[in-house]
Amino acid sequence: MRMTDPFRPVDDDARATMDRLLGDMRHGVLSYVDPQRAVPSASRIAILWLPGHGLVTLVSELSLHTPALQSGENCALLVGEPATKGDALTAPRVTLHAQPLPIDKSELRDPWLTRLPKSGLYFDFTDFIAFRFAPTDAFLNGGFGKAYLFGPDDLATYAS
Amino acid sequence: MRMTDPFRPVDDDARATMDRLLGDMRHGVLSYVDPQRAVPSASRIAILWLPGHGLVTLVSELSLHTPALQSGENCALLVGEPATKGDALTAPRVTLHAQPLPIDKSELRDPWLTRLPKSGLYFDFTDFIAFRFAPTDAFLNGGFGKAYLFGPDDLATYAS
Repeated sequence: MRMTDPFRPVDDDARATMDRLLGDMRHGVLSYVDPQRAVPSASRIAILWLPGHGLVTLVSELSLHTPALQSGENCALLVGEPATKGDALTAPRVTLHAQPLPIDKSELRDPWLTRLPKSGLYFDFTDFIAFRFAPTDAFLNGGFGKAYLFGPDDLATYAS
Repeated sequence: MRMTDPFRPVDDDARATMDRLLGDMRHGVLSYVDPQRAVPSASRIAILWLPGHGLVTLVSELSLHTPALQSGENCALLVGEPATKGDALTAPRVTLHAQPLPIDKSELRDPWLTRLPKSGLYFDFTDFIAFRFAPTDAFLNGGFGKAYLFGPDDLATYAS
């Protein structure tokens, strides 16, 4: 007999896993609909959770995914890398649904460069712009049989 | 001065990188539009390139992403994991745009289980079903400044 509703209630363990995934995050996969082609696409982008600023990214205006962020349409982020060994599908990861909002990158400069010092090579290039992801809900997969849906209240910590 | 058209012509190096990324692939990130909510979402799924079968996945009918595959609408796959050290955005990865097509999983059984023996635990569960991804085009990112667009002819090798 297998369960048809695989979601558990969000509990302290789930919150701790989410905190760890987003706290350790330095990049993730952006899933978006290409505004020109109207088909789904995906890119790896730099993302940080900077408390006080929320979930933020820095992208080039020349990148294929940037028009989707500029459109303000909802997108998704997959965060959480598998270990290099073992079954990748048992590694915790989270799908965040979010709206991208343009922000002033100068506000992020110090905390961003503290976390990702190598991006100092391009942070100040004029084509690099910043966005905040305002999360609407999230699906946390802690491995087979450990799935949780986070609502807006559960995500308030990461919203700014 | 920075380039505004960052794409290079597909050459032998690009083909070799693509062959390596897809040949080593055991999982990737599926980017799709959720048919119920009409918003982009993303999941990590098992994917293999099985010559003679193409780019194939095995998913549970209970998974959140499976209705999108069953819809037959275009989706995208991001393949290529960053190294655990260094800048994740310099690691080669490819975004494939593709149409998911249902296939008979029994045809994949031997080659799939040879590559992913641990999935023998659930391969025969009745809710697990298989799809082939028919690729339409692909964006190969070999690191900063090394970007290539693959068209249908460039992808014929991976189509079956």
